[in-house]
Amino acid sequence: MIRAGVLGATGYAGAELVRLLASHKDTEIAMLASKTYAGQKMSEVYPSLRGVCDVVLEEADAETAAQKCDVVFTALPHGVSNEVISALYEKGLKVIDLSGDFRYNDIETYEKWYQVKHSCPELLKVSVYGLCELHREEIKKARLVGNPGCYTTCSILGLAPLLKNNAIETKNIIIDAKSGVSGAGRGLGQAYHFCECTETMKAYKVATHRHTSEIEQELSLIAGEEITLSFTPHLVPMKRGIFATEYANLKKPYTKEELLKMYHDFYQNEKFVRIYDNALPENNHVTGSNFVDIGLTVDERLGRVIVISNIDNLIKGAAGQAVQNMNLMFGLPEDEGLCGAGYYL
Amino acid sequence: MIRAGVLGATGYAGAELVRLLASHKDTEIAMLASKTYAGQKMSEVYPSLRGVCDVVLEEADAETAAQKCDVVFTALPHGVSNEVISALYEKGLKVIDLSGDFRYNDIETYEKWYQVKHSCPELLKVSVYGLCELHREEIKKARLVGNPGCYTTCSILGLAPLLKNNAIETKNIIIDAKSGVSGAGRGLGQAYHFCECTETMKAYKVATHRHTSEIEQELSLIAGEEITLSFTPHLVPMKRGIFATEYANLKKPYTKEELLKMYHDFYQNEKFVRIYDNALPENNHVTGSNFVDIGLTVDERLGRVIVISNIDNLIKGAAGQAVQNMNLMFGLPEDEGLCGAGYYL
Amino acid sequence: MIRAGVLGATGYAGAELVRLLASHKDTEIAMLASKTYAGQKMSEVYPSLRGVCDVVLEEADAETAAQKCDVVFTALPHGVSNEVISALYEKGLKVIDLSGDFRYNDIETYEKWYQVKHSCPELLKVSVYGLCELHREEIKKARLVGNPGCYTTCSILGLAPLLKNNAIETKNIIIDAKSGVSGAGRGLGQAYHFCECTETMKAYKVATHRHTSEIEQELSLIAGEEITLSFTPHLVPMKRGIFATEYANLKKPYTKEELLKMYHDFYQNEKFVRIYDNALPENNHVTGSNFVDIGLTVDERLGRVIVISNIDNLIKGAAGQAVQNMNLMFGLPEDEGLCGAGYYL
Amino acid sequence: MIRAGVLGATGYAGAELVRLLASHKDTEIAMLASKTYAGQKMSEVYPSLRGVCDVVLEEADAETAAQKCDVVFTALPHGVSNEVISALYEKGLKVIDLSGDFRYNDIETYEKWYQVKHSCPELLKVSVYGLCELHREEIKKARLVGNPGCYTTCSILGLAPLLKNNAIETKNIIIDAKSGVSGAGRGLGQAYHFCECTETMKAYKVATHRHTSEIEQELSLIAGEEITLSFTPHLVPMKRGIFATEYANLKKPYTKEELLKMYHDFYQNEKFVRIYDNALPENNHVTGSNFVDIGLTVDERLGRVIVISNIDNLIKGAAGQAVQNMNLMFGLPEDEGLCGAGYYL
Repeated sequence: MIRAGVLGATGYAGAELVRLLASHKDTEIAMLASKTYAGQKMSEVYPSLRGVCDVVLEEADAETAAQKCDVVFTALPHGVSNEVISALYEKGLKVIDLSGDFRYNDIETYEKWYQVKHSCPELLKVSVYGLCELHREEIKKARLVGNPGCYTTCSILGLAPLLKNNAIETKNIIIDAKSGVSGAGRGLGQAYHFCECTETMKAYKVATHRHTSEIEQELSLIAGEEITLSFTPHLVPMKRGIFATEYANLKKPYTKEELLKMYHDFYQNEKFVRIYDNALPENNHVTGSNFVDIGLTVDERLGRVIVISNIDNLIKGAAGQAVQNMNLMFGLPEDEGLCGAGYYL
Repeated sequence: MIRAGVLGATGYAGAELVRLLASHKDTEIAMLASKTYAGQKMSEVYPSLRGVCDVVLEEADAETAAQKCDVVFTALPHGVSNEVISALYEKGLKVIDLSGDFRYNDIETYEKWYQVKHSCPELLKVSVYGLCELHREEIKKARLVGNPGCYTTCSILGLAPLLKNNAIETKNIIIDAKSGVSGAGRGLGQAYHFCECTETMKAYKVATHRHTSEIEQELSLIAGEEITLSFTPHLVPMKRGIFATEYANLKKPYTKEELLKMYHDFYQNEKFVRIYDNALPENNHVTGSNFVDIGLTVDERLGRVIVISNIDNLIKGAAGQAVQNMNLMFGLPEDEGLCGAGYYL
Repeated sequence: MIRAGVLGATGYAGAELVRLLASHKDTEIAMLASKTYAGQKMSEVYPSLRGVCDVVLEEADAETAAQKCDVVFTALPHGVSNEVISALYEKGLKVIDLSGDFRYNDIETYEKWYQVKHSCPELLKVSVYGLCELHREEIKKARLVGNPGCYTTCSILGLAPLLKNNAIETKNIIIDAKSGVSGAGRGLGQAYHFCECTETMKAYKVATHRHTSEIEQELSLIAGEEITLSFTPHLVPMKRGIFATEYANLKKPYTKEELLKMYHDFYQNEKFVRIYDNALPENNHVTGSNFVDIGLTVDERLGRVIVISNIDNLIKGAAGQAVQNMNLMFGLPEDEGLCGAGYYL
Repeated sequence: MIRAGVLGATGYAGAELVRLLASHKDTEIAMLASKTYAGQKMSEVYPSLRGVCDVVLEEADAETAAQKCDVVFTALPHGVSNEVISALYEKGLKVIDLSGDFRYNDIETYEKWYQVKHSCPELLKVSVYGLCELHREEIKKARLVGNPGCYTTCSILGLAPLLKNNAIETKNIIIDAKSGVSGAGRGLGQAYHFCECTETMKAYKVATHRHTSEIEQELSLIAGEEITLSFTPHLVPMKRGIFATEYANLKKPYTKEELLKMYHDFYQNEKFVRIYDNALPENNHVTGSNFVDIGLTVDERLGRVIVISNIDNLIKGAAGQAVQNMNLMFGLPEDEGLCGAGYYL
């Protein structure tokens, strides 16, 4: 049994991790940590977990974590857990970090978009970007994984096959993304008050959202040239989901079938990627699952392709992908604990 | 492997059954039937199931079902599947019926509340009421189970311990119940149009809802006297959940602790019943799970107890309890395939 | 033109008052006060009001309010505005208080249920309970009105005709009430985070909610005997609305028609009360309006009546009734500024 | 008093028209027609209107309408009311049509995008496109107005100032639009069942939605060159609202202030257009009102502008703009009956 720990277990990503790990057959939950709720049971904070995970929350330090765990998931805001991660890494544990801290190849990009100094740049060199479908082999060998952001997972996987096949112009790529509210986390804010969130929607951080840089990094790698693009996040009144509408100009007049073939080829052995040949993704098809759903339309009139990609932000966009990474890092079947269908309802 | 079939697989209860059976390790989905969608894949009707259950829907008859299956779940409106059930039963299969047809001990009660003539009264004599926590031993031996209604499961389990202990007056019992919209099924209706359903609520079938008779049947059995009560269903703007607020006058001035002890004793070995000692249930604690959550308040001023009981209508109130019944009927661990925590989010 | 001021203009009740006053043809908004947002425009806090009410918020004292206003609405938590109200009252202004402070005839009841000492008991003697349909004549002469609570307005108007006609037993009255989330106010709290509020519901303050005492006070007055009753508030995932389901035992076997006649007679000249003869109220019939909708069912089997009453908590349950009170106090048409239909959508 | 009639009064746009007309002080509702509900009161179909509009619905013909009305609003699907409109027009009435039939300058564009033959092309020559902010003077003189679509009103007003000022490239304009569910009308459909609509979202009619052609027509007029663009509609789980995110490449490096000035100048006398200088629109700022809210961000890195425009689809996108058109056609104050603030909550 893999002994797993979660730092930041009571945030939304942390709680989803606990839910997934609790039914993962090769894992035991060895430690859950929370600053705010230390001393309480996980199931007091999330009563949905009563009888499923009644572990008592600790205010864990690296020492304790290292003794109790084989792998630690850190689900805290960026910049907060670097010291702990550094200590855990040195002690030989495997670490999967859900913040933005270990997602970048280039420290300058990180520091520019996050407007902070990175506190352990040396670890950036050994960390691997945990987008399983793109970096599987490196992840298998990694001991520190930077688990990708929710918007980025969805956007990158939506556009990767087109760039790989050199099918679209790299200028004028536009990603119009819509997120459920859990993406904003469990913290309080006027904007997340039910009454100011239901029956309304908005755009935010237009042209400045950090995930832009993460998307650009990965798509540039695939395209083999530097890509900059428009990324616009929106908040829509649903709990879960990243729904991305991506626009790009075609280099020549491809048919829909030709483009779909690129997707089927690119993702041919991917269990968690589902291509839509005759319809388009809808958010309740992925909610509750680790799937990435992708569909597309060719606008022949304009020579443009419109791609829809869609994930559950808490699962494939956070906790599910983290478990998928753990599976890869420990040589388990990649889909262990992640096979369930979404809720639909 | 148990070969399981579902008639009416594309209704909400049917689809939830498919979702649960798809990850039940001792079951294989041997047949899915749907009049409306025969010929299509289950995963075309519910794309959330793509890659999880791509079985093609049939317009199945009893003959086919009997050949392919060991157990058949019938998830059709009352009165519709009696003929098939009768045939399957004769062929030796096990049948779990999710309609109201096989829930009654007394055919007259059924015919009065359902306003139809029962088409196979002889089967009523061998069928067992599938409320697992109350009829476990009979269910284990049954070949035909009438799977309880959602409102009834929630209401009966909420009041049973008090009646068993003779703690409340049997007059003036009031159950004010609130249901999520999936309880109304997948059929179209103006009342279920998103725009006329969100941000609103209503009571319906006040004093006439059929589940009243089912609740009265079971509570009378427990109390050892005939009980009649007020049951008022409401529709609230959420997808899943039965939330019941139950009122009863105490026979003497019990403390909250005394009443809670009755619940702990009554449900001491029940994995799926969770008693709240220091708080009250909330719907997102059970959504997505097979749990029944129960809490209570004693109003000392009025000598009254107010009980809250809460389930997911599609799981413990339909598909989950059906799987629980199957597990019992086949000698499997009762919680097989039902251990997952609820979604919370 | 009546010069109106609002203290606590940026809470939900305050903002709804501003919205209503802005289109009230005999009123001008002379002063809006807010501690938190003083210095900003009202329309910066509520951009829906841009171009409609761009008044700058002040941190107003009694002196300023007295100079600028003829009437002041105080929409602050209980206990907070007594000093200001006292000062304004002495200066001869009319005051409509939306807190619980001036709703009670008996100071002991207030202090028992609110667990605080009333800071200006002398004003309680001159204040009038502002439930327009029951106290119209006193309100017309009043200078200080205690505007009723949302739950109480809905519950009292739902039961008054039955008690007035001595048609129901005064024991075993049960009010099971459901509220939209705006009833909890604009303040932040984990329970009001969109993700923990949508798709779920709960009961709260069972048997202890303060509005119980307010309901008992008024129904006792009508019945001519002291009434105690069960009142259970619930939070349901919609923004607006109080939906109350009331249960009472009939003293003799009345027909539905007989009971409805009591309602039609009792409310025969009431513009804002709508009786349902052939259906039942639904929340989207009142949302956005000052109406009180009432319907009922007689359960002949049990000798019990189930009444449904329904209001918009922010309008008839707060700001609308406050404007209705102002209209009465200033001799304006009672429905001035309140004639609009609800939104339905 | 203007005698107004509505054909198709029980659809969502029709009902919203009735709600607005009922409180319009220079109008009386002279006739409401509905095929489905003829014989019932409007307030039986929409009980929110009880006591506000209890007019009996008729199955009206042109003859009756002409006798009873000065102006008729036709709120029926395209192609359905041409015959009636033709008759009414000949009899000298004023007609405001909410379908797509009279919005086009060029019959071929209509027939291509709607895939039907236009049944009264001669009327197309006299009809005026009723986007008040762009065609005010023609509307004042018109007797037949084609009331614009919801998506189109929002999109056109969002981009018009930039094109008027020649500030953006006319290639690569992308409009990613999100609509509340009422935009789909009151008709039933699986996609609008509450359970399949809440907590989810989707794109639909990608690259083929008819409103594309309407947007292109008007923007081409403003730009003085033929514009083609991407328009992608999405369905999001809220009742009301069109929220459009528009992308365009700047012809030179404008600052945000320079672009905002173009908007302020272009809309300087427009009561219903609100420009955001320091923030961005959010849907609950316009819900329930006739306002168009517009804000923008300049992405200097990419030389691109992202504009947000936002309306209530049933008001400025349908019924409200229809009333605004009526006001213009009858020489009333343009904002008569349309001054109310949005709901926010």
